[in-house]
Amino acid sequence: MLKVAIIGATGYTGLELTRLILKHPKLQLTYLTSERYAGKKATEAFPHLLGFLELPYQKLSIEGASKESDFIFTALPHHVSMEVVSAFLELGKKVIDLSADFRLKDPQTYYLWYGKSHISPHLLERAVYGLSEINRQAIKGTSLVANPGCYPTGIILALAPLLKEGIISTEAIVIDSKSGVSGAGRSPSLESHYPEVAEGFKAYRIGQHRHMPEIEQELGLIAKKNVTISFATHLVPINRGILNTIYTQPIEEIDTYSLLKLYQNFYENEPFIRIYPPNIYPNTVNVRGSNFCDIGISYHDKWKRILIVSAIDNLVKGGAGQAVQNMNIMAGFEENLGLDYIPLFP
Amino acid sequence: MLKVAIIGATGYTGLELTRLILKHPKLQLTYLTSERYAGKKATEAFPHLLGFLELPYQKLSIEGASKESDFIFTALPHHVSMEVVSAFLELGKKVIDLSADFRLKDPQTYYLWYGKSHISPHLLERAVYGLSEINRQAIKGTSLVANPGCYPTGIILALAPLLKEGIISTEAIVIDSKSGVSGAGRSPSLESHYPEVAEGFKAYRIGQHRHMPEIEQELGLIAKKNVTISFATHLVPINRGILNTIYTQPIEEIDTYSLLKLYQNFYENEPFIRIYPPNIYPNTVNVRGSNFCDIGISYHDKWKRILIVSAIDNLVKGGAGQAVQNMNIMAGFEENLGLDYIPLFP
Amino acid sequence: MLKVAIIGATGYTGLELTRLILKHPKLQLTYLTSERYAGKKATEAFPHLLGFLELPYQKLSIEGASKESDFIFTALPHHVSMEVVSAFLELGKKVIDLSADFRLKDPQTYYLWYGKSHISPHLLERAVYGLSEINRQAIKGTSLVANPGCYPTGIILALAPLLKEGIISTEAIVIDSKSGVSGAGRSPSLESHYPEVAEGFKAYRIGQHRHMPEIEQELGLIAKKNVTISFATHLVPINRGILNTIYTQPIEEIDTYSLLKLYQNFYENEPFIRIYPPNIYPNTVNVRGSNFCDIGISYHDKWKRILIVSAIDNLVKGGAGQAVQNMNIMAGFEENLGLDYIPLFP
Amino acid sequence: MLKVAIIGATGYTGLELTRLILKHPKLQLTYLTSERYAGKKATEAFPHLLGFLELPYQKLSIEGASKESDFIFTALPHHVSMEVVSAFLELGKKVIDLSADFRLKDPQTYYLWYGKSHISPHLLERAVYGLSEINRQAIKGTSLVANPGCYPTGIILALAPLLKEGIISTEAIVIDSKSGVSGAGRSPSLESHYPEVAEGFKAYRIGQHRHMPEIEQELGLIAKKNVTISFATHLVPINRGILNTIYTQPIEEIDTYSLLKLYQNFYENEPFIRIYPPNIYPNTVNVRGSNFCDIGISYHDKWKRILIVSAIDNLVKGGAGQAVQNMNIMAGFEENLGLDYIPLFP
Repeated sequence: MLKVAIIGATGYTGLELTRLILKHPKLQLTYLTSERYAGKKATEAFPHLLGFLELPYQKLSIEGASKESDFIFTALPHHVSMEVVSAFLELGKKVIDLSADFRLKDPQTYYLWYGKSHISPHLLERAVYGLSEINRQAIKGTSLVANPGCYPTGIILALAPLLKEGIISTEAIVIDSKSGVSGAGRSPSLESHYPEVAEGFKAYRIGQHRHMPEIEQELGLIAKKNVTISFATHLVPINRGILNTIYTQPIEEIDTYSLLKLYQNFYENEPFIRIYPPNIYPNTVNVRGSNFCDIGISYHDKWKRILIVSAIDNLVKGGAGQAVQNMNIMAGFEENLGLDYIPLFP
Repeated sequence: MLKVAIIGATGYTGLELTRLILKHPKLQLTYLTSERYAGKKATEAFPHLLGFLELPYQKLSIEGASKESDFIFTALPHHVSMEVVSAFLELGKKVIDLSADFRLKDPQTYYLWYGKSHISPHLLERAVYGLSEINRQAIKGTSLVANPGCYPTGIILALAPLLKEGIISTEAIVIDSKSGVSGAGRSPSLESHYPEVAEGFKAYRIGQHRHMPEIEQELGLIAKKNVTISFATHLVPINRGILNTIYTQPIEEIDTYSLLKLYQNFYENEPFIRIYPPNIYPNTVNVRGSNFCDIGISYHDKWKRILIVSAIDNLVKGGAGQAVQNMNIMAGFEENLGLDYIPLFP
Repeated sequence: MLKVAIIGATGYTGLELTRLILKHPKLQLTYLTSERYAGKKATEAFPHLLGFLELPYQKLSIEGASKESDFIFTALPHHVSMEVVSAFLELGKKVIDLSADFRLKDPQTYYLWYGKSHISPHLLERAVYGLSEINRQAIKGTSLVANPGCYPTGIILALAPLLKEGIISTEAIVIDSKSGVSGAGRSPSLESHYPEVAEGFKAYRIGQHRHMPEIEQELGLIAKKNVTISFATHLVPINRGILNTIYTQPIEEIDTYSLLKLYQNFYENEPFIRIYPPNIYPNTVNVRGSNFCDIGISYHDKWKRILIVSAIDNLVKGGAGQAVQNMNIMAGFEENLGLDYIPLFP
Repeated sequence: MLKVAIIGATGYTGLELTRLILKHPKLQLTYLTSERYAGKKATEAFPHLLGFLELPYQKLSIEGASKESDFIFTALPHHVSMEVVSAFLELGKKVIDLSADFRLKDPQTYYLWYGKSHISPHLLERAVYGLSEINRQAIKGTSLVANPGCYPTGIILALAPLLKEGIISTEAIVIDSKSGVSGAGRSPSLESHYPEVAEGFKAYRIGQHRHMPEIEQELGLIAKKNVTISFATHLVPINRGILNTIYTQPIEEIDTYSLLKLYQNFYENEPFIRIYPPNIYPNTVNVRGSNFCDIGISYHDKWKRILIVSAIDNLVKGGAGQAVQNMNIMAGFEENLGLDYIPLFP
């Protein structure tokens, strides 16, 4: 059994890691931190865990965590994470970081979008961007994975085959994304206050979302050229789920059948990518609670546009699930170990 | 007092007409039809109306309705509506039809998208497309208004200034629309069954939505040239509201300030169009229960794209409210009479 | 036009007062305070008000408010309210206080349940408990109304006829109440954080809810004897609405027909009480956005129990609407002036 | 591997059985029926199952099912179920019936509440009421389990310790229950139509719910005397979950501590019953997707009442999960095999 710690265990990502790790056949949860709930047993704060967990939450001690665990998941806010991560690396631990701190390769870009200088710029090169399906080989060999953001995960997976094959224009790809509310985290704020969200639907941070540079960076690496996106994010009154509707311009005419073939081949042996049959499009409920990324694709003759729709559960494939998938890769386990959940419908 | 009938009074549009007409200072509701609830008092079926309404529902009689009323709102399913409407017109009544039957000018297009030959093609020319802000003059003089669909209303209002002024490319404008569930009507179906919808978000009928030809027809008339759209519709788990996110390509560079000016001028004296200040975007809750169309607009330098976000309450500005607005125009009343509601927030 | 101020205008109750007052034919809104939004125009913070309001929010100045307005609505947190209210009274203003500070007659009870000594115990006697239907005469003559809590309003109205007539036992009446989330106010907290609430249903503060002493006090005054209640509160994932299910034991056998008669007579000329026909029970959507209290009642032979179900919109009849109703009474206006809204369904 | 069939596999209970059985380590799903989807592969109708299931749906053939499977789950509407069940029993199959057809011991009562004469009254005695925790021994030995209704499951488990020990009065126990919408099944109807349900909360079928006789029958068996309940059901706008708030009168004074002790002992080795610590009450989200029944209990001195709050996921412990639990008992498997899910929060 591999002993693992969750640093920042009481945000939604930390809680979802807890759920997945507790049932993972080769993992043992040995250390949980929470500034807010330190000293409490996990089940006092979260009765849904009753019967599964005896561990208490504690305040973070790098040494304590390192003594108890061999593998570290950090699920902390950005800025906070970078300090903690480098400390664990120095102690020889393997780390999967679920914050944004190690996703951007360029410290300048980090400063620009996150408003603070990076304290360990040397680690940025070393960190592997943990989109499992795309960077599997590099993930296998690293000790630091930067787990992707929730929006980027569903978007990059949806576009990778087209960009890899050079099928579409790389300029101003239109990406219209919609996210459930758990994506904004567990800290109370007016933006996630129930009566402000329920029965509403809104666009927010158009052209200003911090996931934009991350998406463009990774799409560029796949396309081997500069990629720009027109990116609008929206808030859906649901707990879990992201759906992306993506409009692209093929360089030459194409047809839906060829596109489906391309995607099926590209993701042939992937346990967590499901390509939909023609004329059916993803729905966030079809992936809820699971690690799947569902993809529907079609070519529209009249518009000369390829449309791709992708859906993930932002807390699983868009967070904790992909982190466990990456850990499976790093540890040499089967990739879907502890992740083989059927989505919860309805 | 103008005596009005609602033909098809127990769908959501019919019920919303009921709400608005009962409080309209110059209207008297004299005749209500419902096949399902015929013989019942309205308040037996709909307790929210208790205290406001003594009328019973009855089965439709053209003669009966014509005797009791001078002005007819038809809120029937398509196909059914066209027969009824022509009968009322022959009896000299003014009619606002809320179905799709008189929106498309070309009977061929009607046949193609609605699967049935039009029985009164001669009326198609006579019918005025009732987007109040765009066709006010024609509405004033007609006896038959084809009230616009819910998606087209918010979309055409969002694009009209740009197309009128020739600012954007008219090819494959990307329109990503999201609608609440009441837009699908009150007939039970799996698509609107609570557990199939709640906590989910999905794309549906991509490239196949019946509002597409209606939108392209009207945008074309405004642009005075052919307009094509890339149109994807989505279902949001809310009752009321449509939000459209629209991505357009300006022919020349422009800036947000000029765009705001353009929109403010274009809609200067409109009581129901609200242009948002920079960096704020519409939210469906800000228009709920009201006849407003809220519009946010911005130019994105890096993408060379103009983004427009518009929001309406699909049952009010996207249905019953715009119908009453058109009736106000036809009857020579003040245009916002009986429609001046503050949105219900939260 | 009567000039009115809202002190604490940006909580949900303050916003609902704003909505109602802006459309009230005899009121003019002259002064709005908000600590959080001071200096901003109302519409900057709340775009749903665009086009209705030019006033800015300002920090509270008792003098400023008194100069601009003749009638004061205080919608502040408890503890804060009592200081402000007495200052306005000293300046000769009429005040309707929507906090809990003047509802309890006994300062001891106030201390016990709200954890602070009352600073103006002499005002407690002078304050009139503003349940309009029950205390109309006293409201007419007072300068200080303590507007009832949201739970108490629907509960007292549901029980008043039975207690007035001495029909039921006054011991441990079972009251099972369910409230929408706006009842908890607009301050962000984990309890009202969207993902903690959506898709859930829970009981909370059983036997410890602060509305309990208020309910028992007022029921006791109606029954002219001590009344105790078994009171459990629950949180429903909706924005607006409270539904109470009340189980009582009649002293003698009775039947549904007599009960309906009793209620219809008791509330005969009340514009805002709607008694349901047999076998139909209230639904919060039937009162949404309106000032109604809907009541269904039945006698169950086998159980020897009378069941009453009542529903209100907690922000209207349970807050801002009843406050305006009380203001109408105090000012000698028609009681339903500015309150005659048809509920928003769906 | 035990081969199992689901008869009626495309209602919500059938789908939930599918989810649980597919992941059960000792079960093999060999036969699925659906009148509606016959001929389709399961994944065509339900994309959330993509990758888990190759079986097609077929029209029911008793022989076909019997040839393919050794164990039968029937998830059909009442009336339909009784015919099918007896046919399977005659062929020597073990059956767990999830309809109401075999729950009531008295055919008269069945006729009264379900409006049809029972065609196999002789089987009513033989059927074992499948509340696993209460009837484990009888379940072990039977070939026909009548799986309990969703309301009865959470209610009986909440009351069993008190009634078994004779602690409370058995007259008119007040049970106030709230259910999510999936409890009404997957057939479209106005009652479960999204816009009729969302943002609302209502009481329905007060004193007329069909689960009433079932609850009273089983409580009576536990108490060894007649038990009557005052039972009101409500609809909550959530997909999954039932919460029951139960008000009882103890015969003698008692305290919360003793009650907790009693419940902890009574359910000591039960894998699916979780007794909450004092002052915390269940929330449906804490059991979502799991087979738990969570129970909170307290004594209220002032009221002389014991309050119990219980919560289950109606599709799991209130349906498919308990059916699998019963199957585990009948087959001699560990009782929580294939059921050991951590609830999905949020």
